[in-house]
Amino acid sequence: PAKTKSRRQRWEVKPSEMANNTLNPIRAIVDGMKLSPNPDKPMIALSIGDPTVFGNLPTDEAVLQAMRDAVDSQKFNGYAPSVGYLKSREAVANFYSCSQAPLEADDVILTSGCSQAIDLAISVLCNPGDNILVPCPGFSLYKTLAVSMGIEVKLYNLLPEKSWEIDLQHLESLIDERTSCLIVTNPSNPCGSVFTKEHLQKIIKVASRHCVPILADEIYGDMVFPGCDCPSMASLSSDVPILSCGGLAKRWLVPGWRMGWILIHDRNDVFGSEIRQGLMKLTQRILGACSIVQGALESILNNTPQSFYNSTIRFLKSNAEICFSELSTIPGLNPVMPSGAMYLMVGIDMDHFPDFKNDVDFTERLVTEQSVFCLPASAFEYPNFFRIVVTVPEEMMVEACARIGEFCQRYYRPRSCDSNDLDQ
Amino acid sequence: PAKTKSRRQRWEVKPSEMANNTLNPIRAIVDGMKLSPNPDKPMIALSIGDPTVFGNLPTDEAVLQAMRDAVDSQKFNGYAPSVGYLKSREAVANFYSCSQAPLEADDVILTSGCSQAIDLAISVLCNPGDNILVPCPGFSLYKTLAVSMGIEVKLYNLLPEKSWEIDLQHLESLIDERTSCLIVTNPSNPCGSVFTKEHLQKIIKVASRHCVPILADEIYGDMVFPGCDCPSMASLSSDVPILSCGGLAKRWLVPGWRMGWILIHDRNDVFGSEIRQGLMKLTQRILGACSIVQGALESILNNTPQSFYNSTIRFLKSNAEICFSELSTIPGLNPVMPSGAMYLMVGIDMDHFPDFKNDVDFTERLVTEQSVFCLPASAFEYPNFFRIVVTVPEEMMVEACARIGEFCQRYYRPRSCDSNDLDQ
Ligand SMILES: Cc1ncc(COP(=O)(O)O)c(C=O)c1O
Ligand SMILES: Cc1ncc(COP(=O)(O)O)c(C=O)c1O
Repeated sequence: PAKTKSRRQRWEVKPSEMANNTLNPIRAIVDGMKLSPNPDKPMIALSIGDPTVFGNLPTDEAVLQAMRDAVDSQKFNGYAPSVGYLKSREAVANFYSCSQAPLEADDVILTSGCSQAIDLAISVLCNPGDNILVPCPGFSLYKTLAVSMGIEVKLYNLLPEKSWEIDLQHLESLIDERTSCLIVTNPSNPCGSVFTKEHLQKIIKVASRHCVPILADEIYGDMVFPGCDCPSMASLSSDVPILSCGGLAKRWLVPGWRMGWILIHDRNDVFGSEIRQGLMKLTQRILGACSIVQGALESILNNTPQSFYNSTIRFLKSNAEICFSELSTIPGLNPVMPSGAMYLMVGIDMDHFPDFKNDVDFTERLVTEQSVFCLPASAFEYPNFFRIVVTVPEEMMVEACARIGEFCQRYYRPRSCDSNDLDQ
Repeated sequence: PAKTKSRRQRWEVKPSEMANNTLNPIRAIVDGMKLSPNPDKPMIALSIGDPTVFGNLPTDEAVLQAMRDAVDSQKFNGYAPSVGYLKSREAVANFYSCSQAPLEADDVILTSGCSQAIDLAISVLCNPGDNILVPCPGFSLYKTLAVSMGIEVKLYNLLPEKSWEIDLQHLESLIDERTSCLIVTNPSNPCGSVFTKEHLQKIIKVASRHCVPILADEIYGDMVFPGCDCPSMASLSSDVPILSCGGLAKRWLVPGWRMGWILIHDRNDVFGSEIRQGLMKLTQRILGACSIVQGALESILNNTPQSFYNSTIRFLKSNAEICFSELSTIPGLNPVMPSGAMYLMVGIDMDHFPDFKNDVDFTERLVTEQSVFCLPASAFEYPNFFRIVVTVPEEMMVEACARIGEFCQRYYRPRSCDSNDLDQ
């Protein structure tokens, strides 16, 4: 019998599949941990990727002044165009334009944080059933977004022993005809690694061979230690079109302001007007960044003194060096020295720590006993490592390393008597 | 032969289905119009739903001061929780809590504008293949979002002859077992109508009978003319759970700031922890509102003087009255007097204007000849009406009405000689 229109008889409101499939692995892991610090030791959180939490890294006065001016002008209270004010997009274009990868205002879309930039970039390039290539270890948002949209995630390996360069063979082996985007994070969260020009060129070659566009997450762009070069991917690509995602969050130390952007670097009209228009249409869903921050953007980009960037980088490098050199002396730990961003990854020789099941167990106990919290790298799909954020004040960094040393000394077993093959 | 892994041989990057299906009817219609104003008359745009464009409706000084203080404090530069700062959510809860519909901080989610609030509300309640009930005429974003997510939109009729009340029979006839949400916009864009308590109660009864949760778009809440009452839907619902979407955009005259919220009004635990958690998970995709505006929110809500709200409303009412009484005298036009928000809808007796095909044609020619731009209500799926925004300075309102009068006088034909049944 044709039941044309049956109606609900009782209340039954359930969250959508999309809501259910929006999974944040960091939350899933951290919420599952029993984090009860040692009451005798003040807590040191090396886990939070927010450079502002300790107050030791304020943004520049020029950045604040730009905001005050934008508020006072009363010119930025109305709706901005959904892609952002023209003048603000022009400012971003000028700031990032270079001869190998020129940019105009129309190549820039302002977004609510780099997160929305990534959301829009994935949304425009990928259909459900497609797959995207994502670094492992890598920033968890890519997977969170992709899975919620029914897009498959294929993890390509980074190699700690090669300063976290991409295993290019592995990367290439994953590509199939439904691969619609290659995500490259450079500099990297969680690794703090920075790819050489040569390595970037090789990555682009792989993308070129298989005609896969690149989403370059360059939110840590220019946050590299002195002596290290960090060309943008677009500046090295002659044929692979690139959506470069960035924002104010990290380099200007204002992550809460939610100002991000997509830089559209087309090549040979592969994106053409279609991808541009697709992006523009998507921006009309919820509109983007706060108009006050947009209004301040030109002045922020043009008036922040070089000394501000330099001193942030000097601080990050110094802290990273302290952390690296301290942890290098600890048996059972294998820190990898970063070259940029604000993170450092540390490998745990689990077979020397038979008391702990895994990195989650290890870092949980580190909280219980030493009140030091490092994010287990399982949150980045990379077990048996943990990530340290190097934005904390130097004294804390030193103290934290000492406590980690004490902890490891207590649990380190020189030979892994109990280990069997499964433990490796 | 089993082709296990074929790879792309040439570039072929196309926008996703979702991008292609993100359709903004206002853009589609306006972009298709030939808008060349009469060079002898300065342009008057009555089309833009942004109260700030003419500078005659500045926000309150208290609102600006709250922003300056938030910038200066330097306490709001870091990441806020994805649902918003606790103190800011508390402030919103206090501001909107009432005895019939009490709210706590946990019932509030801060979002990037009311648009994101609507996006999250639809996203959590609806799966692809579901349908939602949307007012006609109505704000176009509902359909834009729903269609892009594969959700069907069923339009229910509003009745201009009954001050745009809902045709409840029509509404009820549309409900089936895949109806996952009823959207009610009150006060209304584009109608400026405000439902009576009794009508709201009847709407809630329909939802209750069929167990359909309500998304109450109350972005124009409290923007009602003196003498008119506008209870929130939640204050009248004993059994229908409601997600109320709102924000600073309209009442505080700062639409660009992108500060919105969802107020979760559960009833009998129908939403339960599941819908709440679903919403929370969805907020982690791109995070929400700018932390500076969040930091200012408590002070904005608590320190904006009543006189500010009153004077805005007085102005809107006065302008609406001018517009209504002027257009009422024009043969062929049928303005409907609003009771709130910032809009007024005008019916066109098309059979008296045989020179024009439809509302789009009519309003296009109104620009060409009189340099007055009103949005054709086809943009709201409601042909043969146009919408006037009543936030423009009074002189402009008066002048615009005079020009509309002149235009109509020129084209009005007393008897519709050429009309046939199809034209009705
Ligand atoms: C690699 C990477 N991309 C994007 C983001 C998100 O940036 P935003 O806060 O601007 O959304 C982060 C934040 O930690 C990140 O580490
Ligand atoms: C009925 C209605 N809902 C929601 C919105 C969007 O509000 P916001 O600008 O805060 O996203 C508007 C804007 O015009 C509107 O008219």
